[in-house]
Amino acid sequence: MTRSITVLGATGSIGASTLDLIRRDRDAWRVIALTANGNVPELARLAREFAVELAVVADEGKLPALREALAGTAIETAGGCAALEEAAARGADITVAAIVGCAGLAPTMAAIERGGIVALANKEALVSAGDVMTAAVAHHGATLLPIDSEHNAIFQCLQGNDPRHVRWITLTASGGPFLDWSWERLCAATPAEAVRHPNWDMGAKISVDSATMFNKGLELIEAHYLFPVGLDHLRIIVHPQSIVHSMVEYRDGSTLAQLGPSDMRVPIASALAWPARMDTPCAPLDLAGIGELTFRKPDEDRFPATRLAREAARAGGAAPAVLNAANEVAVAAFLAGQISFTRIAAQVEDVLTGFAPPPPASLSDVLAVDGEARARARLLMETV
Amino acid sequence: MTRSITVLGATGSIGASTLDLIRRDRDAWRVIALTANGNVPELARLAREFAVELAVVADEGKLPALREALAGTAIETAGGCAALEEAAARGADITVAAIVGCAGLAPTMAAIERGGIVALANKEALVSAGDVMTAAVAHHGATLLPIDSEHNAIFQCLQGNDPRHVRWITLTASGGPFLDWSWERLCAATPAEAVRHPNWDMGAKISVDSATMFNKGLELIEAHYLFPVGLDHLRIIVHPQSIVHSMVEYRDGSTLAQLGPSDMRVPIASALAWPARMDTPCAPLDLAGIGELTFRKPDEDRFPATRLAREAARAGGAAPAVLNAANEVAVAAFLAGQISFTRIAAQVEDVLTGFAPPPPASLSDVLAVDGEARARARLLMETV
Repeated sequence: MTRSITVLGATGSIGASTLDLIRRDRDAWRVIALTANGNVPELARLAREFAVELAVVADEGKLPALREALAGTAIETAGGCAALEEAAARGADITVAAIVGCAGLAPTMAAIERGGIVALANKEALVSAGDVMTAAVAHHGATLLPIDSEHNAIFQCLQGNDPRHVRWITLTASGGPFLDWSWERLCAATPAEAVRHPNWDMGAKISVDSATMFNKGLELIEAHYLFPVGLDHLRIIVHPQSIVHSMVEYRDGSTLAQLGPSDMRVPIASALAWPARMDTPCAPLDLAGIGELTFRKPDEDRFPATRLAREAARAGGAAPAVLNAANEVAVAAFLAGQISFTRIAAQVEDVLTGFAPPPPASLSDVLAVDGEARARARLLMETV
Repeated sequence: MTRSITVLGATGSIGASTLDLIRRDRDAWRVIALTANGNVPELARLAREFAVELAVVADEGKLPALREALAGTAIETAGGCAALEEAAARGADITVAAIVGCAGLAPTMAAIERGGIVALANKEALVSAGDVMTAAVAHHGATLLPIDSEHNAIFQCLQGNDPRHVRWITLTASGGPFLDWSWERLCAATPAEAVRHPNWDMGAKISVDSATMFNKGLELIEAHYLFPVGLDHLRIIVHPQSIVHSMVEYRDGSTLAQLGPSDMRVPIASALAWPARMDTPCAPLDLAGIGELTFRKPDEDRFPATRLAREAARAGGAAPAVLNAANEVAVAAFLAGQISFTRIAAQVEDVLTGFAPPPPASLSDVLAVDGEARARARLLMETV
C-alpha cells in the first residue's frame, strides 16, 4: 500500500531525515509536495528525485530560479506564503510540518484543516497557537503526531493506555552544556560556549534554548497542549545522557519510558509508520555499552526558563506566545553579543510581566501577539 | 462493574499482594475461591474477610481443620489436588495462578481450560509445560497475563504494538548478591550468603536462583513461550538497581521500557486491571532520588545458568522441564549443604546432557519428565 506524503520544510534537518527514511522504502511512498525556505538547488534536486507534484519556495523572489531548475519536468512550482499553504492543503495522507518558527504556523494549520495526519516538528506552532491549533485538530478530525523526540516518546508511552490513568508525564532534559556551571560562570557565558550541545547537533537558536533550558520550557508548554493531563502532572527531570526521551507514570505505579539513540530518524519513523513500525538504519540501543543513565532534579534558580514556561502555560491565552516571541528576540540579542546569557530569561520574564494581551482566537491574533511581543522585547532592550 | 476473581495460592506473597489490592477497592471485586497449601488459619481468615464461595486447602489432611475454622459460614470447603482444580474451574473473570512449583500446573491448566483471564505468577507452569500450556491457551481462547515483574513489563511495552515489529526483548537481571564475586569466591559461597537478595524480599529457593541467575534463565524460557519473537531476539542485561523491569526494542530503533519500584503490587495491579489501570499505594518513581541506573553484559562464564536455559529453550520439548527439575534438586542440595554453589549449574548441565526424553504432549507427560529428571538429578549427586 502506497501512502502519500508532503514535507513542509524539506531542506532542513527534519525534512532531510524524513526524506532519508522515505528513500529507503521508496515504493511505499508517493511524495506530493516539498517546500523550502530559500534553498532552491536542494529543493529542485529533491523534487526531481522524488518526482513530486509540487515544489514551493517560501522566498517568492527565488521562484524564477526554482522554475528554471525544474524546467522540462512535470513538476508544478510556486512561491510565497500562500503557496506554502496550498502545498499543505494538497491532501497527503501525512504532512510533515517541519518549517521552523512562526512561518510554519499557517501551513501547519492548513494541513490540520485537511483533517489528515500531521507529523509536527514545529515547536512554535503549538507553543504560540496551542489553543487555536488543538481546537482546529478537534474540529477537523486531524491526527497530530509529535516528532520532537520527547513528545514522540510520551506519545509512544501512552499507546494502548487511557490518558485518564496518568499520574505523571516526565519530560527528560539533557540539561545543556552549562548544567554544572555556577551562576557567576553563567553570567559570563559566551555564544560560542552556548552552541556546543553535548548530545544533539542543532542550530544556534535551539542550542541556546537548550543551554537556558527554554527548549525544555517550550516542550513543557507543547506537552501541556498535546497531552492535557494537567500542568500539575507534568514535570521535568535532568538526564544528561539523553537516552531516555521521556516517561509516563500510571496510577498503578508503572512507568513506561521510551529510549533510543540521539537520532531524529527514530521519532520521525515512529510518526511516519504509526500505528505500525518501519525499519530505520539507526543503531540498536547498547545500554551495557553506555553503562549508566543518571537523573537529577532541575535547578530553577540557575535555569529559570522552565519555571517561566510553567507560569505561562498556567496563565494560558497569549502568555505562551509572548514567552516564545520574547525568547526569540532575547536569544538573537545574546547571539549578537548585545545581552548576557543570564539576561535572556530575565528579559523574557520582564516582557511577560508587562504584556498580557487577551487570548488569541485565531491565527492572525496569534501572529499579532507574536509581533507585538517582539517589538516590546526589542524596546525593553534599548531602555535597559 | 464488579469482576469476579479466584486466587490460587492465596496465602503466599503473590496471593497476599493480590488480596491487598482487592481490599482497597472491595466493591469492585467478588472473590469466588481462595486456595492455600496448608496455612488453614490464614486461609480461613481470608475466606471470611472476602466472603468467598469456596476455600480449598491442598493438604487434604488439613480439611477437617478448615471445616472447623469456617463452621457457621456459607463458605464451601474442600481439600486435595482435585479440589484445587475445581477451584480453578469455577469460572472467575480472572484467576490468579500463584501456586509455587509443579503443584500449580494442573490448577493453572484447569483455569486456562475455562477460557478466561489467567494472571500467571507460577514460573514452573510455563517453563515445564510451555508447549502444552500455550497450546491450551490458544485452543480455549484464554488470555495469559504475566505477573512476574519482567514479563509484565514486556507485556506492557508490547501494548498497542505488533510483535512482528520487535527487534529485541531485553530482560533485566539484578545480577543477584554475587554479581561481582570471583569464581573462587563463588565456589565457596554459603546458603546464608545466597539468600540475601539486594532488591526483593524472596524465599530461599528463588533467592538462590537469583544468585545463580537460574531465575533469569527460567524467565528467559518463560519469555520464549509468552512472547514468541524467536530466541535470537531475546537477551538479558544486568541492571543491579532493578528499576527497569524489562524492555522491548522495535525495528525503528525505539525502545520501550517499564520501570517501577520493587513492589509486586505494581505488576499484579497491571494484570488485574488490564487493559485499564487501577490505583495502588506504591510510591511514585523517584529517579532523581535514585540518581543512576547502571547496565552491563551478563557474564556467562561465572553464571552459566542463562546459557543453559537458552540451550534448553532452543532444544525445546522436554528440555526446559528437565532444566527446571534438575535445578530444584540442586538448589535443595545446596541449601542442605550437600553441594557447592557452583555445582548447581554444573549438575543441571549434567542432567540435561544425560536425559533427553521425547517432547511431552500432555500435562501428565510433563509431570513424568519432571519426576524422572528429579530422580536422575538425585542419583547423579550420589554418584559424584
